[in-house]
Amino acid sequence: MNFLEERIQKDGIVREGNVLKVDSFLNHQMDIGLFDQMGAEWKVRFADRPINKILTIEASGIGIACIAARHFGVPVVFAKKSKSINIAGDVYVAEVESFTHKNVNQVIVSKDFLGPEDHVLIIDDFLANGCALQGLISIVQQAGGTVEGIGIAVEKGFQNGGKIIRNLGYQLESLAIVDAMDPTTGAITFRAQ
Amino acid sequence: MNFLEERIQKDGIVREGNVLKVDSFLNHQMDIGLFDQMGAEWKVRFADRPINKILTIEASGIGIACIAARHFGVPVVFAKKSKSINIAGDVYVAEVESFTHKNVNQVIVSKDFLGPEDHVLIIDDFLANGCALQGLISIVQQAGGTVEGIGIAVEKGFQNGGKIIRNLGYQLESLAIVDAMDPTTGAITFRAQ
Repeated sequence: MNFLEERIQKDGIVREGNVLKVDSFLNHQMDIGLFDQMGAEWKVRFADRPINKILTIEASGIGIACIAARHFGVPVVFAKKSKSINIAGDVYVAEVESFTHKNVNQVIVSKDFLGPEDHVLIIDDFLANGCALQGLISIVQQAGGTVEGIGIAVEKGFQNGGKIIRNLGYQLESLAIVDAMDPTTGAITFRAQ
Repeated sequence: MNFLEERIQKDGIVREGNVLKVDSFLNHQMDIGLFDQMGAEWKVRFADRPINKILTIEASGIGIACIAARHFGVPVVFAKKSKSINIAGDVYVAEVESFTHKNVNQVIVSKDFLGPEDHVLIIDDFLANGCALQGLISIVQQAGGTVEGIGIAVEKGFQNGGKIIRNLGYQLESLAIVDAMDPTTGAITFRAQ
């Protein structure tokens, strides 16, 4: 097991309905030292990629993306979940369905901050059905930019998001892939990588 | 002018209705090197405070808080704007009115991640009327914790949020205080600190 799998094993909580709670260290309380290890690992895995920008989505992707960005020396752009009056009219838009919140959000990125010159690493905390990720990929494509790779903290391997993204040919690096969870025993099975 | 005031002068855009757009470096695209300077400055200003946790609010506070947290060696907790099914029932709640989005949100923090033992630095990107900050202070108080200080990137000095918070006796360190903005000339007047 790698450092993230060990942490999930230790502090993750399995609930009914395929819910994996990692909010003590990943997406509510955030362990910055852990994020730093994750950023270092993605830097190794994407070492040969000419990444000049990281794209993530609010809210729980932002902290991971910002700490990871230190390892790449690049700025972070986060996709916003609703139209703010402070955003200029010219935005890229994608529809994203949220598994957690059971709703559909429009996510937007200002055209000022993503363009054809951008080589983008997409970062997010979770990958399940892949809707958020597909929205972010769509936004990079609308911008004419290049998706150099995708870094995910925890992939739910028993949902099909990761398979779809890999079938599309993207370099997807999930630091932990959960293939099965048992809410009665709390056991978590990770995919060997 | 300090480094943040210089950056606001250079890249901030003044719009009608007392809107200061800093989304090219602070709250949509994020300049991680700048956040690192901000974290270092807060570490100096709060050097004598026994801070063991940083509290912020989604979404645009998270990146700044996470990078700042590296200077304090502490975890970050972010207040969430709506109830997620992944959050256990026991949460602290505050009502927060958003100037930007013209609505009222319930913000919540799980009781698992904030308690009487916590000495909290609150971090956010903007301070205007202070509603978000009052909500975060309320949450720390509900937890029985101690607010050791408040670090803000940009305070709108012509609104009363900062005055109220200082009158309440909190150590509030805003790295840039904007006392006036002129949308016709783009001129920004900073308060001498």
